[in-house]
Amino acid sequence: MRFIKKSRKKVGAPPGTLVHVGEKQTHRVDITLTEYDGETLSEKQIPDVDALIRETTGKEMVRWIDINGIHDVSIIEAMGQAFQIHPLVLEDILNTGHRPKLEAQENYVYIVLKMIQFDDEKDQIQSEQLSLLLGDGFVISFQEKPGDVFDAVRERLRSGKGRIRKNGCDYLVYALLDAVVDYYFLALENFSDRIEAMEEVLMEDPSPRILEAIHASKREMIFLRKQIWPLRDIVGQLRKGEVPYVQSLNRMFYDDVYDHMIQAVEITESFRDMLSGLQDLYLSTISFKMNEVMKVLTIIATIFIPLTFIAGIYGMNFQYMPELTWRWGYGAVWLVMGVVALGLFFYFKKKRWL
Amino acid sequence: MRFIKKSRKKVGAPPGTLVHVGEKQTHRVDITLTEYDGETLSEKQIPDVDALIRETTGKEMVRWIDINGIHDVSIIEAMGQAFQIHPLVLEDILNTGHRPKLEAQENYVYIVLKMIQFDDEKDQIQSEQLSLLLGDGFVISFQEKPGDVFDAVRERLRSGKGRIRKNGCDYLVYALLDAVVDYYFLALENFSDRIEAMEEVLMEDPSPRILEAIHASKREMIFLRKQIWPLRDIVGQLRKGEVPYVQSLNRMFYDDVYDHMIQAVEITESFRDMLSGLQDLYLSTISFKMNEVMKVLTIIATIFIPLTFIAGIYGMNFQYMPELTWRWGYGAVWLVMGVVALGLFFYFKKKRWL
Amino acid sequence: MRFIKKSRKKVGAPPGTLVHVGEKQTHRVDITLTEYDGETLSEKQIPDVDALIRETTGKEMVRWIDINGIHDVSIIEAMGQAFQIHPLVLEDILNTGHRPKLEAQENYVYIVLKMIQFDDEKDQIQSEQLSLLLGDGFVISFQEKPGDVFDAVRERLRSGKGRIRKNGCDYLVYALLDAVVDYYFLALENFSDRIEAMEEVLMEDPSPRILEAIHASKREMIFLRKQIWPLRDIVGQLRKGEVPYVQSLNRMFYDDVYDHMIQAVEITESFRDMLSGLQDLYLSTISFKMNEVMKVLTIIATIFIPLTFIAGIYGMNFQYMPELTWRWGYGAVWLVMGVVALGLFFYFKKKRWL
Amino acid sequence: MRFIKKSRKKVGAPPGTLVHVGEKQTHRVDITLTEYDGETLSEKQIPDVDALIRETTGKEMVRWIDINGIHDVSIIEAMGQAFQIHPLVLEDILNTGHRPKLEAQENYVYIVLKMIQFDDEKDQIQSEQLSLLLGDGFVISFQEKPGDVFDAVRERLRSGKGRIRKNGCDYLVYALLDAVVDYYFLALENFSDRIEAMEEVLMEDPSPRILEAIHASKREMIFLRKQIWPLRDIVGQLRKGEVPYVQSLNRMFYDDVYDHMIQAVEITESFRDMLSGLQDLYLSTISFKMNEVMKVLTIIATIFIPLTFIAGIYGMNFQYMPELTWRWGYGAVWLVMGVVALGLFFYFKKKRWL
Amino acid sequence: MRFIKKSRKKVGAPPGTLVHVGEKQTHRVDITLTEYDGETLSEKQIPDVDALIRETTGKEMVRWIDINGIHDVSIIEAMGQAFQIHPLVLEDILNTGHRPKLEAQENYVYIVLKMIQFDDEKDQIQSEQLSLLLGDGFVISFQEKPGDVFDAVRERLRSGKGRIRKNGCDYLVYALLDAVVDYYFLALENFSDRIEAMEEVLMEDPSPRILEAIHASKREMIFLRKQIWPLRDIVGQLRKGEVPYVQSLNRMFYDDVYDHMIQAVEITESFRDMLSGLQDLYLSTISFKMNEVMKVLTIIATIFIPLTFIAGIYGMNFQYMPELTWRWGYGAVWLVMGVVALGLFFYFKKKRWL
Repeated sequence: MRFIKKSRKKVGAPPGTLVHVGEKQTHRVDITLTEYDGETLSEKQIPDVDALIRETTGKEMVRWIDINGIHDVSIIEAMGQAFQIHPLVLEDILNTGHRPKLEAQENYVYIVLKMIQFDDEKDQIQSEQLSLLLGDGFVISFQEKPGDVFDAVRERLRSGKGRIRKNGCDYLVYALLDAVVDYYFLALENFSDRIEAMEEVLMEDPSPRILEAIHASKREMIFLRKQIWPLRDIVGQLRKGEVPYVQSLNRMFYDDVYDHMIQAVEITESFRDMLSGLQDLYLSTISFKMNEVMKVLTIIATIFIPLTFIAGIYGMNFQYMPELTWRWGYGAVWLVMGVVALGLFFYFKKKRWL
Repeated sequence: MRFIKKSRKKVGAPPGTLVHVGEKQTHRVDITLTEYDGETLSEKQIPDVDALIRETTGKEMVRWIDINGIHDVSIIEAMGQAFQIHPLVLEDILNTGHRPKLEAQENYVYIVLKMIQFDDEKDQIQSEQLSLLLGDGFVISFQEKPGDVFDAVRERLRSGKGRIRKNGCDYLVYALLDAVVDYYFLALENFSDRIEAMEEVLMEDPSPRILEAIHASKREMIFLRKQIWPLRDIVGQLRKGEVPYVQSLNRMFYDDVYDHMIQAVEITESFRDMLSGLQDLYLSTISFKMNEVMKVLTIIATIFIPLTFIAGIYGMNFQYMPELTWRWGYGAVWLVMGVVALGLFFYFKKKRWL
Repeated sequence: MRFIKKSRKKVGAPPGTLVHVGEKQTHRVDITLTEYDGETLSEKQIPDVDALIRETTGKEMVRWIDINGIHDVSIIEAMGQAFQIHPLVLEDILNTGHRPKLEAQENYVYIVLKMIQFDDEKDQIQSEQLSLLLGDGFVISFQEKPGDVFDAVRERLRSGKGRIRKNGCDYLVYALLDAVVDYYFLALENFSDRIEAMEEVLMEDPSPRILEAIHASKREMIFLRKQIWPLRDIVGQLRKGEVPYVQSLNRMFYDDVYDHMIQAVEITESFRDMLSGLQDLYLSTISFKMNEVMKVLTIIATIFIPLTFIAGIYGMNFQYMPELTWRWGYGAVWLVMGVVALGLFFYFKKKRWL
Repeated sequence: MRFIKKSRKKVGAPPGTLVHVGEKQTHRVDITLTEYDGETLSEKQIPDVDALIRETTGKEMVRWIDINGIHDVSIIEAMGQAFQIHPLVLEDILNTGHRPKLEAQENYVYIVLKMIQFDDEKDQIQSEQLSLLLGDGFVISFQEKPGDVFDAVRERLRSGKGRIRKNGCDYLVYALLDAVVDYYFLALENFSDRIEAMEEVLMEDPSPRILEAIHASKREMIFLRKQIWPLRDIVGQLRKGEVPYVQSLNRMFYDDVYDHMIQAVEITESFRDMLSGLQDLYLSTISFKMNEVMKVLTIIATIFIPLTFIAGIYGMNFQYMPELTWRWGYGAVWLVMGVVALGLFFYFKKKRWL
Repeated sequence: MRFIKKSRKKVGAPPGTLVHVGEKQTHRVDITLTEYDGETLSEKQIPDVDALIRETTGKEMVRWIDINGIHDVSIIEAMGQAFQIHPLVLEDILNTGHRPKLEAQENYVYIVLKMIQFDDEKDQIQSEQLSLLLGDGFVISFQEKPGDVFDAVRERLRSGKGRIRKNGCDYLVYALLDAVVDYYFLALENFSDRIEAMEEVLMEDPSPRILEAIHASKREMIFLRKQIWPLRDIVGQLRKGEVPYVQSLNRMFYDDVYDHMIQAVEITESFRDMLSGLQDLYLSTISFKMNEVMKVLTIIATIFIPLTFIAGIYGMNFQYMPELTWRWGYGAVWLVMGVVALGLFFYFKKKRWL
């Protein structure tokens, strides 16, 4: 069930009550602390939040804290105290059914969005909630599951090439968003393949299975659109420089992501139109095929019905049926039947019913 | 009948005429006076409006007057005089068919909205009108029926934990709205379950009953949307601080409700799309099943019609039918029939009609 | 034909040409002059416009001139001269096919709208054009037919209770508009009843008559929407105080009408959705019923066709048909037929085709 | 082919290349010069543009140059030089596939729109492009064909009554636009008649011809809407006084045309809804009729199939069929058949299938 | 696959990574340098970017560098360095799946759009990406394939007539855009022909092939609309003078292109409506034809079924069937059958089923 998460919170509970809402997870929560500037980079696995505070060097570096799991409420709570995060924001981080939004608070900017991956096994889109906190000198990312969306970013950080080590925290946020958007495009490409495949199958063998596939794709498209649409606005705010902690020198990169977002929105729109078109095509194809079958069958029946009637006539037992005693009566009946059958056949042919 | 309440008022009656419009109610009207500040809290059942005025302490406390019934017009009138409420507002309180709105008057803010509860017995949404008056130091709430939507709020007041005892009247209004919105989400979750259930049933056994269920859900969705859409604007006004009696320190909580409202709007939109999708799916499924049945049956008929014709031929009573006297005539006919039947069968098979 | 009135004016005629456009009327035109202030009220039937001028007292009173018929062009012309009404406005008053609008002229405000009444006999909405002129100390109303929409207002004026005698000309206009809107709601209630009735009938006996009824309701809904939508804007202008001759103390009453107008707009939208839903439901129901019938009939035919074939076999006249001479041949055939019939029956049952 | 004119211009030709685009015309181009002020009026047929310059008096009069044909490019070119019209504007005048627009140039205002006439013979809308140039003291109108849309305006000019002789060039433009809009309404009235006629025919005899008529009307409606929509904006600009050469004293008349345009837009919208409704109704009616026919026919077949089976039974030639020798066997079979037939008949009746 | 280009870039690659995205091309990249002012014009084929720099004269001329191929990344990179083009812009030039956009950078304006050509052989629209850079004294154009869209512009440059040699770089960009838009109109004209052709075929012989053609046209229309819509905005920005390097004297020409773009948008909208209409018409036509066939066939069957029944009656072998021994029994049966057949025939005729 995708469009609403069960038990958003205990009904009537006070705001800021911290409850994890979403699929149950049991894996260990990993905390990764990456600190870097133009010259040095250190990457550490941290056991708990207290250790995190201890490990943090006081230097002027970009600190990226990546937390791979939000089902352990105590960690979120500890992070909240350590970084002075508002209880309502913590509640939002824990509620995996949240719609994408950006909230500028006094000492940080809070962004929540969905990461999309296409699960080839289940042949389905998998989504995972990502919460980002961008503050003065730090970026905190909360993911639901350990995953590989950010591996490429990490790789670029380690290699130390390009702007990524020099352009500060907001560039890191850009790089993370860009990685997320890249996966959106992968999912869209996959959709595109699926639509093409369905189109081909549809012409040859329209079965209800293909209809269910179209229906399922439509639902996923609704879901995807719901994630992409608000994300566009979020990136729009970031690029316009209305958001604190975003430097003007990095705005052009947000422009680039924004372009991709608009393209993604347009592609979803096109896909929606195409799926509707496919559905129409399915219905017409199936009804056309059905009609063809019925027509041919009915025509066969219609040709034989008068013939059977003629046979019935001469099957009657009247004592006085002169035709029955004629020498060529039987042959004549075959002749009549042949004429009737051919007559009907050519009539149907002429009428283009065959 | 949901979308319009009968006899809105006597046609042509002057404005401010106080008439109760809605389902007839007969229960006794309960008035509950709750007074609290950070330290103390008193909760009293009050028999009538005069007593209410007497019981009210002059102290600087938050006073919440909760009235569980609006069918007794005299009580509403007395409240109107006691708190100087405009006759047009009183008329709106009594008219249970009103659309959600917010009206800022000189000495109070008037909010009217619908509370939604899902009635499991009737398998239907139940709605009840809630009027809220937020003034300087007081909150008045008018409900149609005694109910439990606000029980959680009351509980939090009594326990005295959290901000609720300290943040003033506007926070109380926030808490009440938040409780109402929680029930909206409960109703939406319930809808989600129903849609899922319908989807499953539909694949197995598409019957007109499921179509009626889809149709009924669509109607409820239209109704729900009509309630949620204007409520979004109301909360939007409250959070922007355009409304008197709302303190800036509580605005962030209204932001939170606003987020929930937007999410609710989006969920209704998604549900509407999904219900339309279900309807399409129903129609295609049923027509596909029907086609399958008709096709098989027609094919059976089509195979037997030529066979019956052949049998008819040799049922004719012509004197000169050489085949009839042949030794193996009967067997030959069976052979011919078998060939025809198999021929047709394989032809249909080849054409993928079977 | 409702959506366009024939011969709007002679094509190419100069602007301001006074021609009555609409249904031909023959009744006598009544002019009623009502003059009142807080203390006194006089009501007179006036024979013609000259008399009207003579009868008018010079005192500081609210003068309401109600003209029950616009087919007598000379009266409109005389009114135009007496009150200095622009020829283009006079043309609009005479053209009953006009869309609702508000025009603020120098010495008066011109409002044109449609009054709606539900005609129970014809089971149809009846509309009549109402033109209102609000000036300094006078209100002129032009109706097409003598009617009772304003009777309640007249009654309130005579009784002298409430604000109506004290709040001036603009309050009178408010009272008239409010009376018109009350009739809109009556028509909408009536619609609501009709929709409910159609819904019930539809489930039991879907006939093309119900489809025509839905179609007719849709057309009326389109018409109603066309009247209500611009009226909303008109009332919106009045309440915002952008219009001269409207006092700020009466604005709250316009707010009230505005609320009703928005509600009316929303109800029409809901009805439109519901009518579309009904149409879909009709189509599905009828096709489902049809399918059920065809299926059962086809199955009956399909069971009997093989049986008839078997009977045909033993109707053949071959000399050497061993079965025919068997002692139990006839019984055996019955047995075989029974087995075939039951076999098919249970097969169809298993396939859920029956 | 309506929505795009072939060979808009030679692809890649420089801007301002003068080529006539549209239906080939061969008639002689008429140039009519009308000069008037409040007192005098002169109307002359002019052979060519040079003569036009010579004939023009230097006096302070309104000069209206009406050119009835744009297929002679040399005339347009000469006009361009004489009145200093920009080459791009000349190109637009010659391209009859242009969408309505208004362009304010330094020394004139250029308006291009479509004149609509209903051709009763072809039962189709005919459109003709009209270009208007409003400058200081002159109005130039370019039409494609000699026609009678402006005859009424000419008549009013000659009679000299009303404002038309006194209010200047912009009033003349208003009068011309008003005449064009009057013809729009004639076309809409005609549409209205057609829709009504189609509605009546549809109930009685739904044939594919009516569907084609609906389809054709829809296409014409799309075309009409495309012309009316931008014209509304053009008139809107004229009435707001944003356009040079329009005096404020004439603005009220533009207001009047604007009202008509809005009404025309709304009528087209209503017609579109009604045409869609008609199409739905057609489809339902035809499918209902078809169903009725099929149902009755199938029922007849279904009743006779078991009877024929019974007859087949006693047509078998078994030696031992006791019933055949019974005295009342034949009568008994008739009885059984009657019972079966009546039983089925009443069963179908009860099931409401008949 | 049209709506999304595979492997937009390596997922997670840093921004500005130069990878060619699009169909593989192998042809040699041509660089053409055209330098001109009012008097002189030189046109040279340049082997590589270094030569380009050398060949460029320092004079005050308009330099147009046209590059016919973007699959050689090294050339793009060299151009980037030579003209200081931002890496993100270079990435966009290489990504042929980009949506149309305009980006104003410090030292140039970057425009990316699609050129459309109709491929008569494949009966399909072919699109090619065009990137334009407009800077101080230079215009750079990047095309995917060598092609003839700009041949007309080149011709006009060489001939030296008209404004094209005098009005500067921005006029050249205008001329290029205008040439592109001309090809859009060619494609639309072609569409128009196709729609007309489909409409004619549809009435005579509705086959699923025509449905597929409609479906394919719809997809191309969605694609075309996606290209035209943002291009309209781009030209809109250019004409408003918000973009650097565009002189006000050339704005009127951009106005002209803008007009064409709006017209193109409207034509696509009309085509979309018409294609939907065609699809509806197809479905109704095919279902009407089918119904006609089925009805006639069923009627034939229905007439013969009772006749066959009668024949079956007298085929029974009862010993006591008095009719069988009657002298005129056989004739009487023929009479009865004739009466039944004619009766049914006229009944169906009367019911308008035939």
